Amino acid sequence: MSALDPEPRAPSPERYDLFMATLGLIEYEHASPEVRAVYDDIMATRQTDWINNFWKALAHDPATLRRTWQSVKEIMAAGELDALTKEMVYLAVSVSNQCGYCIASHTAAARKAGMTQGMLAELMAVVGMANESNRLASGYQVEIDERFRH
Amino acid sequence: MSALDPEPRAPSPERYDLFMATLGLIEYEHASPEVRAVYDDIMATRQTDWINNFWKALAHDPATLRRTWQSVKEIMAAGELDALTKEMVYLAVSVSNQCGYCIASHTAAARKAGMTQGMLAELMAVVGMANESNRLASGYQVEIDERFRH
Amino acid sequence: MSALDPEPRAPSPERYDLFMATLGLIEYEHASPEVRAVYDDIMATRQTDWINNFWKALAHDPATLRRTWQSVKEIMAAGELDALTKEMVYLAVSVSNQCGYCIASHTAAARKAGMTQGMLAELMAVVGMANESNRLASGYQVEIDERFRH
Amino acid sequence: MSALDPEPRAPSPERYDLFMATLGLIEYEHASPEVRAVYDDIMATRQTDWINNFWKALAHDPATLRRTWQSVKEIMAAGELDALTKEMVYLAVSVSNQCGYCIASHTAAARKAGMTQGMLAELMAVVGMANESNRLASGYQVEIDERFRH
Amino acid sequence: MSALDPEPRAPSPERYDLFMATLGLIEYEHASPEVRAVYDDIMATRQTDWINNFWKALAHDPATLRRTWQSVKEIMAAGELDALTKEMVYLAVSVSNQCGYCIASHTAAARKAGMTQGMLAELMAVVGMANESNRLASGYQVEIDERFRH
Amino acid sequence: MSALDPEPRAPSPERYDLFMATLGLIEYEHASPEVRAVYDDIMATRQTDWINNFWKALAHDPATLRRTWQSVKEIMAAGELDALTKEMVYLAVSVSNQCGYCIASHTAAARKAGMTQGMLAELMAVVGMANESNRLASGYQVEIDERFRH
Repeated sequence: MSALDPEPRAPSPERYDLFMATLGLIEYEHASPEVRAVYDDIMATRQTDWINNFWKALAHDPATLRRTWQSVKEIMAAGELDALTKEMVYLAVSVSNQCGYCIASHTAAARKAGMTQGMLAELMAVVGMANESNRLASGYQVEIDERFRH
Repeated sequence: MSALDPEPRAPSPERYDLFMATLGLIEYEHASPEVRAVYDDIMATRQTDWINNFWKALAHDPATLRRTWQSVKEIMAAGELDALTKEMVYLAVSVSNQCGYCIASHTAAARKAGMTQGMLAELMAVVGMANESNRLASGYQVEIDERFRH
Repeated sequence: MSALDPEPRAPSPERYDLFMATLGLIEYEHASPEVRAVYDDIMATRQTDWINNFWKALAHDPATLRRTWQSVKEIMAAGELDALTKEMVYLAVSVSNQCGYCIASHTAAARKAGMTQGMLAELMAVVGMANESNRLASGYQVEIDERFRH
Repeated sequence: MSALDPEPRAPSPERYDLFMATLGLIEYEHASPEVRAVYDDIMATRQTDWINNFWKALAHDPATLRRTWQSVKEIMAAGELDALTKEMVYLAVSVSNQCGYCIASHTAAARKAGMTQGMLAELMAVVGMANESNRLASGYQVEIDERFRH
Repeated sequence: MSALDPEPRAPSPERYDLFMATLGLIEYEHASPEVRAVYDDIMATRQTDWINNFWKALAHDPATLRRTWQSVKEIMAAGELDALTKEMVYLAVSVSNQCGYCIASHTAAARKAGMTQGMLAELMAVVGMANESNRLASGYQVEIDERFRH
Repeated sequence: MSALDPEPRAPSPERYDLFMATLGLIEYEHASPEVRAVYDDIMATRQTDWINNFWKALAHDPATLRRTWQSVKEIMAAGELDALTKEMVYLAVSVSNQCGYCIASHTAAARKAGMTQGMLAELMAVVGMANESNRLASGYQVEIDERFRH
């Protein structure tokens, strides 16, 4: 993986003004064929014409880029749970973890998948309440009911 | 609230063998009318004939018991999101936070609301992947795309 | 630190029944003079005659045992905040992090320092609400008000 | 709740420069009577003449706005714990969760309630130490002492 | 995935005494050929003759079992970081997240890979300190130094 | 510690544009001899000629500044684990906790200690996977194997 080291980090003037990920972002035109193949599949699967920063940052590690995309593609596809429900669960976890990037990107993804303002509002209410009651349960050291174990 | 202090902590023989919450659990037969009213509403709303430990532990603080139940009742009712989706989001957050009690109780609640084994499996896969990608995003210090801000 | 390796791990019959920490617990009678000095200071400072498991587990690493105790002793002493307030903050953080051991031990410590049942109940209500509103704030991607920055 | 959808999202020029919450912020002059009533109660209770962004973002969901404010008002009022202690606990949890918005807003709130620089410093020291020892306890897999269970 | 539903949940007498994962554990002798193939690869890769509960619980969802194992196998193999370092990082994260199962299993894995008691002790000290200073940094709302952005 | 209160908070014009920590940053030239002694030791130990914001923010509380630095110095020194491994573990925890400041500063520190791009990439992959499997383990409520307890 040391072959990555010569990777230029966009020595353009704006790099001193704008910080864009630890290792910088790899744009399509500078990407290797291996990385481009993943970018192409992302755009085809999502029916879109651009790649968001997450993947461009991961592209410095093509193995992780490919594995992560394959996993996301497999996991987020509609199954017994539909795609919108999965996007909302993803967003709920990101909010609970307070990951700024993920909240922004998955709010957009969930909306694209059909989440209305009303659904967003209800989702946040559930996430908030779950976080509250999680602490009440552990704060009072509540033992698990026998019935929940059978 | 100092009136709570004389609350007996179930001085039965088994209390030395079995720990059931910091302040102990308040059973229906020992509960005040105010607490019983909440218990009754929980059982009526959930169409069940028992109260799980979470509420019995909270009952030492009737104001919090009542407020928490009212909030849960309001938030978890079907709206733009159906009740099953809400239960699964609740479970997803509890898993992400690794709250043992909440995972046990909300796995049971989600199943009662219709979650199949297949749905549980897909839910866990999404929760796992969201937790993974949350850290990849922050680990690479990925900046939020301009498009996600508009 | 390799000198720690020969440390016997209590090869008594009950070790197959009872798990008490990764490296086992070092009791006073088997402790080195360096460890005993810390144990003695803990008991003197806390005006008690026993050592809880946390310190006995840490005692496998005398440097960390000593440094951690010194820090705890310095930080938890009454200052502008009294000792009870500090214990309750410690408990609040432990509940928020859902650390079972810490919740049990700091609930006991806070009660010893004067926390009533009513105070415990109010503390948990604040911890729960803070965890809820933390997620509402990040879930809605709320920007920090300019006034909070001056 | 679909009635919220027509809610205009401040299509002024600056919205392309400044991102202010997923759904935008609802200012008093554009708020419905139901939302204004909550805003009025917040300002009266806090004896202030402005509303911070958290509430303006929540206002897109009037039911959650009202319920959250009622809960905060009830929980944060002085009881067995005084209002300053409660604000500091709230801040401690927000710091532990690393919620940027909440740290900024509750640092301001705690200062207004009387937190000095010295108290802030002691509070942070306790929060830091609790987070450290929480991990030492779980990292060494320390079992809960029997004495902490009675 | 509904084909999983008829999966018997070990209706043996001991299931009323011993709780072993939400969906139960799938032992090798009851596993499908697809699951056995993963079990075989785990045992061959790890040069061991048993499967730990994590995989037996995941086996109810063969797709997630296979994908997770493939990812773990790829990620944890020695690369620029040796296998022991990776195991210790895995353990460090599990401790920080306070995941009981993961701490137990990865403590064992790291020891098998060569982690001594001294290394364990140093690892825990670093994990503890990182958790402490993470909160001091966010508690004081420290801005990122310009030098760290270039 | 009330002597800290008169500490001026840099009432220069730029303070309205630039927010730099709750209490502001204490530069070397304005620091007390006690604080300067810590700054000097940090620069000497790290063989550098500047102090990053974390320490300048902590300097409002000289006792915490000194104690934290002494602990960091002791913990992060090479022992059975080399300094680079410790820096990477520190970074892994900071990423898992999603502490922006700590990720930025410890990415820089780990690079200075010799972390290559390839090592960074592998580290992030492990951190991501650990976070994922932590939730799968708790989500399926997997019990700890007996073998991991001996």
